Amino acid sequence: MKGRIHNFNAGPAVLPLPVLEEIQAELLNFKGSGMSITEVSHRSKWFDEVIQDATTRVRRLLKLDDSFRVLFLQGGASLQFCMIPMNLLPDGQSADYVNTGSWATKAIKEAGIQGKAINVVASSEDKNFSYIPKDISFSRDTAYVHITSNNTIKGTQWASFPDTGGVPLISDMSSDIMSRPFDPSLFGLIYAGAQKNLGPAGVTLVIIREDMLERVPRGLPTMLKYTTYVDHNSMFNTPPCFAVYTIQLVLKWLEETIGGLEKMEEVNREKAGLLYKAIDESGFYKGTAEKESRSMMNVTFRLPSEDLEKQFVQQAIEHGLGGLKGHRSVGGCRASIYNATSLEAVKALVDFMDEFVHENG
Amino acid sequence: MKGRIHNFNAGPAVLPLPVLEEIQAELLNFKGSGMSITEVSHRSKWFDEVIQDATTRVRRLLKLDDSFRVLFLQGGASLQFCMIPMNLLPDGQSADYVNTGSWATKAIKEAGIQGKAINVVASSEDKNFSYIPKDISFSRDTAYVHITSNNTIKGTQWASFPDTGGVPLISDMSSDIMSRPFDPSLFGLIYAGAQKNLGPAGVTLVIIREDMLERVPRGLPTMLKYTTYVDHNSMFNTPPCFAVYTIQLVLKWLEETIGGLEKMEEVNREKAGLLYKAIDESGFYKGTAEKESRSMMNVTFRLPSEDLEKQFVQQAIEHGLGGLKGHRSVGGCRASIYNATSLEAVKALVDFMDEFVHENG
Repeated sequence: MKGRIHNFNAGPAVLPLPVLEEIQAELLNFKGSGMSITEVSHRSKWFDEVIQDATTRVRRLLKLDDSFRVLFLQGGASLQFCMIPMNLLPDGQSADYVNTGSWATKAIKEAGIQGKAINVVASSEDKNFSYIPKDISFSRDTAYVHITSNNTIKGTQWASFPDTGGVPLISDMSSDIMSRPFDPSLFGLIYAGAQKNLGPAGVTLVIIREDMLERVPRGLPTMLKYTTYVDHNSMFNTPPCFAVYTIQLVLKWLEETIGGLEKMEEVNREKAGLLYKAIDESGFYKGTAEKESRSMMNVTFRLPSEDLEKQFVQQAIEHGLGGLKGHRSVGGCRASIYNATSLEAVKALVDFMDEFVHENG
Repeated sequence: MKGRIHNFNAGPAVLPLPVLEEIQAELLNFKGSGMSITEVSHRSKWFDEVIQDATTRVRRLLKLDDSFRVLFLQGGASLQFCMIPMNLLPDGQSADYVNTGSWATKAIKEAGIQGKAINVVASSEDKNFSYIPKDISFSRDTAYVHITSNNTIKGTQWASFPDTGGVPLISDMSSDIMSRPFDPSLFGLIYAGAQKNLGPAGVTLVIIREDMLERVPRGLPTMLKYTTYVDHNSMFNTPPCFAVYTIQLVLKWLEETIGGLEKMEEVNREKAGLLYKAIDESGFYKGTAEKESRSMMNVTFRLPSEDLEKQFVQQAIEHGLGGLKGHRSVGGCRASIYNATSLEAVKALVDFMDEFVHENG
């Protein structure tokens, strides 16, 4: 669409254009209500249909059975870092964490702040978090195993999930939820801040298996207990209605336009394949993640010098390619290619990368 | 605007039409960024200008001096109910609470859940919360005094704030913030869920006086400490960008179209005056709040029978007047007339009320 750029932001990130167009079209009058979606009551039939549909689509896309509850919370993944041990790690027990980067480190820190017993059973810190650890030995009797399925900043991703021998896996999936199918039966809890693959910032999808709820201690503040959200269908108090509504439209697009997660994964593999090929064959760009740990969502790479990196990011913007600067904590370049990033956008980026090598290589 | 109703919802509630129109116009391309406001990075110049402008306008509208910090949190006022005692009520001290209805009751409950020492120094529960207590004796050495400035469900409002003898006042102002000027120097903390007078659901405005921050205990989870939001300009993690953006536009409308809080109060007084007059002179409708405690924001009233109330709400909808049903916990009728409710909307409601009496009185 005229005036729009190809947006490779890491989050908040690009949304499907048809979703934005639908929001725009009905912004002043939602489904004949005479009100905006931002103005209808969260207890109205209008919003009820939105949240029910969003929930149903999450269940269908991820093939969740009846043992899972689908919740919408606020506070981002960062609030989950403290809610998870608070709710699911009973005193006297310990939990295993795998440290694969900045966000995993924060999750570990928040458990520690609460004085919870944590075992960091594997870490890739020795090589600047450039890989996903393999052949991990989990602790006997661990209450859960926490991982970060995709590492937005370091550009690594679990290609498959570890065998925990039946211990509930908990995963921060903020940056790769809905990007590929997976077996949900491994998981006790999945959480994802929406602003990468699901919708706008301001809502966090939490999927929790029923049996985990038995661990929630009495006496927690109401808003910090998973059971509150389960018991009130995520509406103990007013939910972030606009963000939930946008998620609903994104999931509808994923089901009805893309055709589900198998199809989405195909497209995502093609997009990532094109970019990594352009990097590997260039003799100029250098991927920062080890090849078998590479992320399909965040492609991180360096150029021969920081000056060239600056120039690359700046010239990319002039070519209508935005958001390619690496995270402020690591530098370099990063192309985030979430579900809503089109193949066309990736091809435009590859063309630009080739051109840039030609001129500067 | 064609197709739009007059919206008397209690929250989420009506937004100024020019605000919605501006959101709609720039939804696909925010300020020439080539991205939606939902797609720009929260660390970009685009969002930085939004949150800075929103903050500046809050400071200017409320005449806050440099001792106050303006923060944007998630989780609603309900999360503040637990964060306030967690952060600001040190062990070994106690705090005074005034109970004026459902939300105050919840605030008291959340302090109790944490085992904090609370004194309910005044309550209007004896008369179904139909009035605001007067001549309250506050406890010696109370850490703070907590009130609810406007009671959305019961339709009462503090006409002026109590003299606490210098003890910091803390107020839930979710349903009347920005509806009238007040002296901020009385307050240690003010909080307001946005979805009534400020913007969409999904963001909570918190205004905290610097000296209160000294009370924040070490060892709280990062996302539950006010200091985290102060230290990171509300961006320790991704804030609810769209909701903050909408607040910015609402505040701009308040300053530039309405002309500030003095003007806003005049309009609000006129609106409430018209409605209460229609009730009092009808001999048919009966206001539920005591006259001197009546809210300028939520006008609660009963009809001679529940059948007539149902009929009233239904016929109102047919006349393009929505959201008049009382809260599910109390029944009856309620017209919420926040800042964005126009005088025209109130006049249309008064006309309908007169007509309804004529036909059913």
